[in-house]
Amino acid sequence: MSETKTLASYVVSAEASSIPEDVRHEAKRSILNYIGCAIGGSRHPAMDKAIRALGPYSGKPTAQILARTEKLDPLHASLMNGISSHVFDYDDTTPQNYMHPTSPLASALFAYASVNPVRGADFMHAFVLGFEAESRVGNAVYPAHYDVGWHITGTAGVFGAAAAIGRLEGLNVQEMIWAIGLAATQAAGLREMFGSMAKAFHPGRAAQNGYASALLAKEGFTSGEYGIEGPRGFAAVQSAKYDLSKIGAELGTDFNLRRNTYKPFPCGIVNHPTIDGCIQLHDEHRVDPASIKSVSLRVAPLVMDLCGKKAITKGLEGKFSVVHGAAIGLVRGKGGIQEYTDEAVNDAAIKRVRESTTAVGDPSITDDQAHIEVTLMDGRKLTRFVEKSLGNIHRPMSDKQLEDKFRDQSLPILPAAQIDKAINLCWKIDALDNVSALVESTVPA
Amino acid sequence: MSETKTLASYVVSAEASSIPEDVRHEAKRSILNYIGCAIGGSRHPAMDKAIRALGPYSGKPTAQILARTEKLDPLHASLMNGISSHVFDYDDTTPQNYMHPTSPLASALFAYASVNPVRGADFMHAFVLGFEAESRVGNAVYPAHYDVGWHITGTAGVFGAAAAIGRLEGLNVQEMIWAIGLAATQAAGLREMFGSMAKAFHPGRAAQNGYASALLAKEGFTSGEYGIEGPRGFAAVQSAKYDLSKIGAELGTDFNLRRNTYKPFPCGIVNHPTIDGCIQLHDEHRVDPASIKSVSLRVAPLVMDLCGKKAITKGLEGKFSVVHGAAIGLVRGKGGIQEYTDEAVNDAAIKRVRESTTAVGDPSITDDQAHIEVTLMDGRKLTRFVEKSLGNIHRPMSDKQLEDKFRDQSLPILPAAQIDKAINLCWKIDALDNVSALVESTVPA
Repeated sequence: MSETKTLASYVVSAEASSIPEDVRHEAKRSILNYIGCAIGGSRHPAMDKAIRALGPYSGKPTAQILARTEKLDPLHASLMNGISSHVFDYDDTTPQNYMHPTSPLASALFAYASVNPVRGADFMHAFVLGFEAESRVGNAVYPAHYDVGWHITGTAGVFGAAAAIGRLEGLNVQEMIWAIGLAATQAAGLREMFGSMAKAFHPGRAAQNGYASALLAKEGFTSGEYGIEGPRGFAAVQSAKYDLSKIGAELGTDFNLRRNTYKPFPCGIVNHPTIDGCIQLHDEHRVDPASIKSVSLRVAPLVMDLCGKKAITKGLEGKFSVVHGAAIGLVRGKGGIQEYTDEAVNDAAIKRVRESTTAVGDPSITDDQAHIEVTLMDGRKLTRFVEKSLGNIHRPMSDKQLEDKFRDQSLPILPAAQIDKAINLCWKIDALDNVSALVESTVPA
Repeated sequence: MSETKTLASYVVSAEASSIPEDVRHEAKRSILNYIGCAIGGSRHPAMDKAIRALGPYSGKPTAQILARTEKLDPLHASLMNGISSHVFDYDDTTPQNYMHPTSPLASALFAYASVNPVRGADFMHAFVLGFEAESRVGNAVYPAHYDVGWHITGTAGVFGAAAAIGRLEGLNVQEMIWAIGLAATQAAGLREMFGSMAKAFHPGRAAQNGYASALLAKEGFTSGEYGIEGPRGFAAVQSAKYDLSKIGAELGTDFNLRRNTYKPFPCGIVNHPTIDGCIQLHDEHRVDPASIKSVSLRVAPLVMDLCGKKAITKGLEGKFSVVHGAAIGLVRGKGGIQEYTDEAVNDAAIKRVRESTTAVGDPSITDDQAHIEVTLMDGRKLTRFVEKSLGNIHRPMSDKQLEDKFRDQSLPILPAAQIDKAINLCWKIDALDNVSALVESTVPA
């Protein structure tokens, strides 16, 4: 059987009862993390510009954009959800293929559920199946595909949206094969766009195009039968090397959701071990910022290349500054959205500690590690070696930490009571009669 | 200067007066050929299915789909125009890169001109500039890009639509760079889809996505600055080898439109020399079909691989049958849409001649040649060697032949007087006050 057909048959036929409890819980964690990111990014200028540019071309405004007051048709709402949830680079990551898997998938699903009544159990099942579809396609072509310059979140993400929407639309196997083929032939997104708004456009467009693929397939709009594995299909054309056996291996028993990870801090991931360790020191020693004389960091050499900025004045620059990461951890005991504002970067206490911090690259330190030494005014030294950074697959964020991250992103946008309600709905999504309740819970009054 | 900026600057600043007269005339020929194909394909099931699937998601129905009674928003109308104009594989080809250049470009332009007042002179200039943009991108990556399996009509076509709509929208150079970048990051379309409806979806989606790229860029939605030439840009990611010097070489003085070609017959191009030669024999000798005893063809070996079908009963099979091509040329003296219907394939006279025809592959015959020998009942022999097939760049279809092709495709769909009017408007498109008149001329009463 062809890989495309294998995947299509599974997505069409899988039973919700076959999804293990731990996978269901990880789906909730992914959705909680996603909704928080979509709320957090909902006011980014990229959103305003995209809505202004394309809103006038939208169909009937039936689909609620997450965390915005506007509605658009569900295809355009998928696009906008994808932009908001990815624009701060704060969404989830599957380290085995460097995808941000939830944005292209859930962005289509929540737009769909905004206009079609979808039971939470069906929604979650479609989410799990879409996650498998896109992850397996990504696994098959990683790393050659990513290394050459494809933004795999866009290219593989479109398969997730097509599979999930196709499942909810009740496609049969032939139609699902076409939906996958139409997704394959729209797979796009270049890493050259990193640093521009177009990066967040990728999961948005993947959501929108995957959704459209399912709609077209349902009407009998045909594609090639071998969209993934054909000699001129996705894998062969978009990757110098690939392993198609990863499409079907342990399908239905091994779930990629188990390997999903969440970023604790909204900045370059190489800064995470430093921030993590500094927060630990802050919490354990209740350090008064004024008592800090100097800080000395030993970090992976890559950190100095990517995040060596020291003299900074803007919040955005803070994201690329490991010494800023140390300062916010030690001074505030956290590294959330509020620690990357222009105000935080110019906060006197943070600025003083930042300017008292030195960092050096040390080849014996891995990307996931950091060594921190804080010298206090009284001469005492506090040290910490972070072996595995928080958010690493071996040291996942707790449910509580994910909730805190959600709150941190949402507080500038929604009242606390509404945030509580949205969090609560995420945790019980599989029990909802209609997922639109969760969509509505994100909308500002 | 970067290639993306070079192209953007040219498209933004070029003056209409700099387009030579022969290029203007070739633009009209391309548009005439395109409109005929869009009319001819307007009733294909792929159109009905795409409109049924995506029409409910369309914005305000302000844009007329060519040759249909429906209107959609201009982005969706671009998609539909792209499908109809390419679905019969009867549109134009630039042999140096195997693109079908007009479909992705004009499909966006006519949708745009249906909802925005556009003077014919401006339309034609945008068409010429878009043609250059997509052709030069295609030239830069051909052949490695095509050989690996990209459908270059989709991947390079999106640049043409973005450039042309961007020009009409009055983008400045920075905005045009973003429009090109957004096009680059949406470039898609796999040759694996050949033989399915998804093939014609490629130029349609390219038209729609290029149009959207221009709209987004105009609102300040940013992309990377080096969409074409960046280390992870279009050329590097989507082609193992490329020559960026082709983007800017003789820009503004050499025009790719001069190398555009048009198919005289709606079937595999390898059959064209045979059909061409048989029509010549028919016209010169006024052969009575009943007088034909047998026909013997010597053709390029590739013809036998691709079009060796002899026992056929369906019109679609006729497209892959060189002996059917010989029969229609000899019996009817033409090879139009009407010669590829189920009726034509089962016509008694055509069937008898077809079944009396033998074809052999001969390595001394090029893809553009055919040797034909007709033996009559009275023993006489008629022979013809076709050196360069009609439609070849060295033996282009005449304006009159393009008109005949237009009529042949349009007659099942529009009254003769309306066809005359549409043809006339194509020839004088650059003098129109508003191009919407041409769009309206294609709509059935």
